[in-house]
Amino acid sequence: MPIGYSQLPELLPVAGIRLASVAAGIRYKGRDDLVIMELAEDSRCAAVFTRNAFCAAPVIVARQHLAMQQPRYLLINSGNANAGTGEPGIQDAQQTCVLLAEKAKCSAGQVLPFSTGVIGERLPVGCIEAALDKALAGLAEDGWKAAAHAIMTTDTVAKGISRIFEAGGQQFNLTGMVKGAGMIRPDMATMLAYIACDAAVEGAALQQCLNQAVEHSFNRITVDGDTSTNDACVLVATGAKGSARIKSGTADYRNLCEAVNGICEYLAQLIVRDAEGATKFVTVRIENGRDSEECLKVAYTIAHSPLVKTALFASDPNWGRILAAVGRAGIESLDIEKVSIFLDDVCIVRSGAVAEDYSEQDGQRIMRQDEIVIRVQLERGNAVEQVWTSDLSHDYVRINAEYRT
Amino acid sequence: MPIGYSQLPELLPVAGIRLASVAAGIRYKGRDDLVIMELAEDSRCAAVFTRNAFCAAPVIVARQHLAMQQPRYLLINSGNANAGTGEPGIQDAQQTCVLLAEKAKCSAGQVLPFSTGVIGERLPVGCIEAALDKALAGLAEDGWKAAAHAIMTTDTVAKGISRIFEAGGQQFNLTGMVKGAGMIRPDMATMLAYIACDAAVEGAALQQCLNQAVEHSFNRITVDGDTSTNDACVLVATGAKGSARIKSGTADYRNLCEAVNGICEYLAQLIVRDAEGATKFVTVRIENGRDSEECLKVAYTIAHSPLVKTALFASDPNWGRILAAVGRAGIESLDIEKVSIFLDDVCIVRSGAVAEDYSEQDGQRIMRQDEIVIRVQLERGNAVEQVWTSDLSHDYVRINAEYRT
Repeated sequence: MPIGYSQLPELLPVAGIRLASVAAGIRYKGRDDLVIMELAEDSRCAAVFTRNAFCAAPVIVARQHLAMQQPRYLLINSGNANAGTGEPGIQDAQQTCVLLAEKAKCSAGQVLPFSTGVIGERLPVGCIEAALDKALAGLAEDGWKAAAHAIMTTDTVAKGISRIFEAGGQQFNLTGMVKGAGMIRPDMATMLAYIACDAAVEGAALQQCLNQAVEHSFNRITVDGDTSTNDACVLVATGAKGSARIKSGTADYRNLCEAVNGICEYLAQLIVRDAEGATKFVTVRIENGRDSEECLKVAYTIAHSPLVKTALFASDPNWGRILAAVGRAGIESLDIEKVSIFLDDVCIVRSGAVAEDYSEQDGQRIMRQDEIVIRVQLERGNAVEQVWTSDLSHDYVRINAEYRT
Repeated sequence: MPIGYSQLPELLPVAGIRLASVAAGIRYKGRDDLVIMELAEDSRCAAVFTRNAFCAAPVIVARQHLAMQQPRYLLINSGNANAGTGEPGIQDAQQTCVLLAEKAKCSAGQVLPFSTGVIGERLPVGCIEAALDKALAGLAEDGWKAAAHAIMTTDTVAKGISRIFEAGGQQFNLTGMVKGAGMIRPDMATMLAYIACDAAVEGAALQQCLNQAVEHSFNRITVDGDTSTNDACVLVATGAKGSARIKSGTADYRNLCEAVNGICEYLAQLIVRDAEGATKFVTVRIENGRDSEECLKVAYTIAHSPLVKTALFASDPNWGRILAAVGRAGIESLDIEKVSIFLDDVCIVRSGAVAEDYSEQDGQRIMRQDEIVIRVQLERGNAVEQVWTSDLSHDYVRINAEYRT
């Protein structure tokens, strides 16, 4: 069960988006594993993809298609990542686009493929082909909930959220869903996020909005530092309510960004909350750094430290491990005598040594919580950054050691 | 039990070095925890210390003393790291030097202090003071074995090795001991290594010899990426056999380096072999990189990946995880279609995709071994680098989660 999240809330339909989910039998039995997401004509679509050099076949194809024209269909499967499959994998991904395009009367370039699941096995194109008719017949505006379930792999719950925002005096629905349990497991390659609104947005503004939202949400979560070959995040603006296109730099654009940021941050945190074996949801916040870069260096060094993560699992206020992580983060001419470290509001390290008024009981009290903020003050400037992570538990090792057996 | 190492071999005495170990009651009961190592007059001493900005009090003091004059005594305690103790910790470390210097009739600046053990507790200077007389009375050339035991903290066995090397037609003994179980645990702050020979070596040449040896040994091991606040490695040349001083750039210097390199590599590997919870000893070797830097980037990304490490623990030839780690190592314009990956001599990935002749049985056979070489060919140049690491097991989490409870 994810930390602080029990079940999928109601997801609002988005005018101009229809979804269908079917059981294509790609890997799982008795559950949906194929989703078609239909985008109204004149929709604008922005996307960001994994930066892993070994990106999966569908990522290569989706990037190419998106660079040529606006998509009409997203074709998403779980159970098989179509990664590490070489040139045949790319042909498989293209073939699924061709098959859907023929049935849906569009060009293959207007279909973006997405896959998540096991790495290194050929995509069963026949299974997907056989399921397309049923899927196309089932397209509906209220298909979000079923789709959020169908894209799951190792997730323990379906993940999504809706918001309403205003632009030009009109209200718009914004709905997002995500799959991913911890951004880990390149072999269950990993994070896919789909967000759509029924406002109209200029293409460049939409991409800009997505880029800044992802930077402070999906790019700020880490479970074990591994990034996957298939990660993708898509933001669609259908314009299906006939409103004017939102332009960058306007008040409407800021409203859009605020709503998209909120959804991305929420969905990103859900991935950490559902991280494999996680028993704690941890915010690592670095304050008073010289710039963002050094704040992030310190934050990730703490968040990736197996020693800090096992101490979190043990609810052990082992400040020595946090202090040592700060010390080895590679910050130039760090004055350790200015560094302070807090667990929530309890100061554990002040001026580079254990705080005089610190008591083990106070630290223990915070560490027993299932949501914890580790806050480090560097006293070097005004930059602030935060990342979200989880602990390292027995179950993490069990899940990842036993995964293929 | 360490992988491929059962017990301390015989350690050769080094003329000009006398050691004593006593039970000072610093933390442990019923075992030695304090070592004095006496260096003959005219010895030369080289050292490298942790690069962690939060370095411990004894590291600060030892650096200062070594910069001023050649040491006569090394004073080493286990059980308490005297780290995270601020200014009082520095005074404690200095005080132990003063106390030993008074009894040994040298200056306090001729004593180098070293501590390893729990972080954040004041050093019990009184315990050390009370044990000094007995220790000084017990100094002997055959004290290496007892000392290798006395400096242990979480090590499961004492670690050391001896070699003989030739210079100027004369034979010299070279003996080294190390403590450290995995370079992890900044709270049991962590690696200490002491190596000595009875040859005479010029000071600058000795430091140069140690620097290059450490770079390819202690700086090439990793268990979890955490580096400690107390790491130190000392190389002493006593010159007690009255030989001429070895100079840099000579054949004798190369003989010395070869012997020191061999000892450092052996001792470094012993730390990984004894890593907490380790069930596998893994060499990660990157070939045909453009330069050392990018080879090391890829090597450490693989060696630090919790997913690769849990797969190693599970004996699962999960090549997707290795491939994804190569892909996210941040190598500029990496051509993934040239990358090959081997487990020992079994090719698992060729030209960026699973090798056609690869069988799961072959991979499984290698992964079941307790010593494994992961070899990655980048096909970008002639650089080669290797690092040594271990797997990530249930016991790692257990040991590090339960450590203080």
